[in-house]
Amino acid sequence: MISQKMKKMIATSSAIREMFEEGKRLAEIYGKENVFDFSLGNPSVKPPQSVNQSIKDIVDETSEIELHGYMNNSGFSSTRAAVAGYFNKRYGTTYGEKNVVMTVGAAGGLNVVLKSLLNEGDEVVVFCPYFGEYRNYIDNYGGKIVEVPANPPTFLPDLDVTEKLLTSKTKAVIVNSPNNPTGVVYDKEFLTGLVSTLDRAQKKWGNAIYLISDEPYREIVYGDAKVEFLPSLYDNTIVGYSYSKSLSLPGERIGYLLIPDTCTDFEELIASCNVATRILGFVNAPSLQQKLVERCVEETCDITPYSDNKNILTEGLKKLGFEYVNPQGAFYLFVKSPIEDDKEFCRIAKEYNLLLVPGSSFGCKGYVRIAYCVSKDTVVGSMTQFEKLAKRMNLI
Amino acid sequence: MISQKMKKMIATSSAIREMFEEGKRLAEIYGKENVFDFSLGNPSVKPPQSVNQSIKDIVDETSEIELHGYMNNSGFSSTRAAVAGYFNKRYGTTYGEKNVVMTVGAAGGLNVVLKSLLNEGDEVVVFCPYFGEYRNYIDNYGGKIVEVPANPPTFLPDLDVTEKLLTSKTKAVIVNSPNNPTGVVYDKEFLTGLVSTLDRAQKKWGNAIYLISDEPYREIVYGDAKVEFLPSLYDNTIVGYSYSKSLSLPGERIGYLLIPDTCTDFEELIASCNVATRILGFVNAPSLQQKLVERCVEETCDITPYSDNKNILTEGLKKLGFEYVNPQGAFYLFVKSPIEDDKEFCRIAKEYNLLLVPGSSFGCKGYVRIAYCVSKDTVVGSMTQFEKLAKRMNLI
Repeated sequence: MISQKMKKMIATSSAIREMFEEGKRLAEIYGKENVFDFSLGNPSVKPPQSVNQSIKDIVDETSEIELHGYMNNSGFSSTRAAVAGYFNKRYGTTYGEKNVVMTVGAAGGLNVVLKSLLNEGDEVVVFCPYFGEYRNYIDNYGGKIVEVPANPPTFLPDLDVTEKLLTSKTKAVIVNSPNNPTGVVYDKEFLTGLVSTLDRAQKKWGNAIYLISDEPYREIVYGDAKVEFLPSLYDNTIVGYSYSKSLSLPGERIGYLLIPDTCTDFEELIASCNVATRILGFVNAPSLQQKLVERCVEETCDITPYSDNKNILTEGLKKLGFEYVNPQGAFYLFVKSPIEDDKEFCRIAKEYNLLLVPGSSFGCKGYVRIAYCVSKDTVVGSMTQFEKLAKRMNLI
Repeated sequence: MISQKMKKMIATSSAIREMFEEGKRLAEIYGKENVFDFSLGNPSVKPPQSVNQSIKDIVDETSEIELHGYMNNSGFSSTRAAVAGYFNKRYGTTYGEKNVVMTVGAAGGLNVVLKSLLNEGDEVVVFCPYFGEYRNYIDNYGGKIVEVPANPPTFLPDLDVTEKLLTSKTKAVIVNSPNNPTGVVYDKEFLTGLVSTLDRAQKKWGNAIYLISDEPYREIVYGDAKVEFLPSLYDNTIVGYSYSKSLSLPGERIGYLLIPDTCTDFEELIASCNVATRILGFVNAPSLQQKLVERCVEETCDITPYSDNKNILTEGLKKLGFEYVNPQGAFYLFVKSPIEDDKEFCRIAKEYNLLLVPGSSFGCKGYVRIAYCVSKDTVVGSMTQFEKLAKRMNLI
């Protein structure tokens, strides 16, 4: 009796989530320490100390009715002002609360903005490899996903190919830098090129093309990689953010949309996001978490553990003959599958209690994703298993 | 550039939310004490004392990674077990965690279940007057809303009329008792009749018809009114719940779906709700609030203030010549508009700083809703204004 669409969806459900559940099952059989679960982007780094203290302070200092009550569907004024202030301080912008819609994580925010923008059949361009959920989010509102093929080994999308895929029906382009699953950070040169491409397409078709920048990994960058501030490069940029990674709060579902005044039909777009937040059943981002963001807006987790994991993994896998993209941000390593069939490779890896996610889930066959936001013990412990896997794959 | 559908939606946006925003605007002009905002179901009663204490205890006693981290999309096992336990203790059922999906409030839960069930063009039957958002939730998934006309003065739906509206395309019927906006509690006699009607239709059409029971007001009943447990009457019942009212946590967005094993295609339905939770962008219900529910699952707010407000209002308005439905539950009073045009009546009421919501917003013209989940001062203070309004309307 369930919807035909959902029937299919269940059958091809998230490989990431499936691996996550599988990991819990294997841990019960073999013991947690003998299962190396690299499937899910569930941060292992604790939130900054101020998070739990702030929660207790907020509970003590805020009237209960205000703290747990309804507010404008876009969120508390004070929280939205704090988020705007973060941008103004960091990038010299002049945003106000009117530019910010608090959302149920980045996933909620993307749904809200796509609901706001898409007519049946409108096209949304994504760059392979991409977070597989984009496909579902776009489909939720009758949109059509248009994939720009992966461009290894840099994984910077080919702009000539991109330009050919922009049509009169293109409503938005989604970028995600630092990237899940590659860890690539788009540099200024690439982004300048992308923005020129979009500008030409806007002129050609006489339509606005929104650049939706999904930035949950904005604060997680290594070495001298720099995350560009897209609204300064392109007027029609909408930023989606989540505190899931930067404050290690993925279960709390708190994030925002930043919509600059420069966006085409700004007023209508903001009004639409406000209504979409309500009618999609979010109603508003969780109120206590909004208050928390207000207090911790400039905080981030210590990313040293991720950096350490990255170094151990990349050095270790290199010695074992694996090829991968060198990550500049996020906490994912995108490794080339030694055999063509990445799903089969994941199946073999699972025999060694190594849980990886096939690149096919990200629209990019022939690769697998390792989420290294795990404990150092897991990374170190996994190396003997990776060695066995490398031998099995005839890499060493 | 925004979606055509959303353009319309913004224009006809929620009258309730509009009044809520208007109330805040008027309060700035006339002072909060001189504006009588009966627009929104935002509880004025504080959460039970245990709520804030539990939040602090949870923060102190739970590992941060678990507390703020991802879990199964359906929620923490322990929370779902606690909710199942609540039902088992209260109704002698044998539910387990598999029967419970934690949701982002009841609004999130309804979206999840409708996404799971509806194919384009499937019909969902609602009884006028109904919570206006049902229309949007159904429309989100291509469903068609089918309204059973209001049946004053009891506001128990006419079952003969209902039966004629059940077709081969009927996928679900939504009931809401205690009812928003009438305060009516459906008695066993009516529900037995409804269930027989549904059973006949299921047999006639050879399809399951799910009865979605939206129960955010389950714990708010007055006198000897009794809220029936629908799963004991009808196998295909799905219960949607929110802690927004019973624990006064509307901003926190926490609730659940209860899906008994007796539901047709139970396994698939549960799997579908799990996936829908993920792909609609909820991902999971806020994790800290799940932990809170686990500790406070048997608690409810003190509803005496609502009962007192109801008594003051009903006695006062009766004397002034207003007609209304006597509420048995929830915290709404559904008052007959002294003139045919309920929107015009609300406009006139606003001249006296009385903020009411037109019945048209609930699919029932000629009535207005008073949300009396406000402070006693607001209710008492409003009486002189209601008196002026009654004079203006020539009631006294």
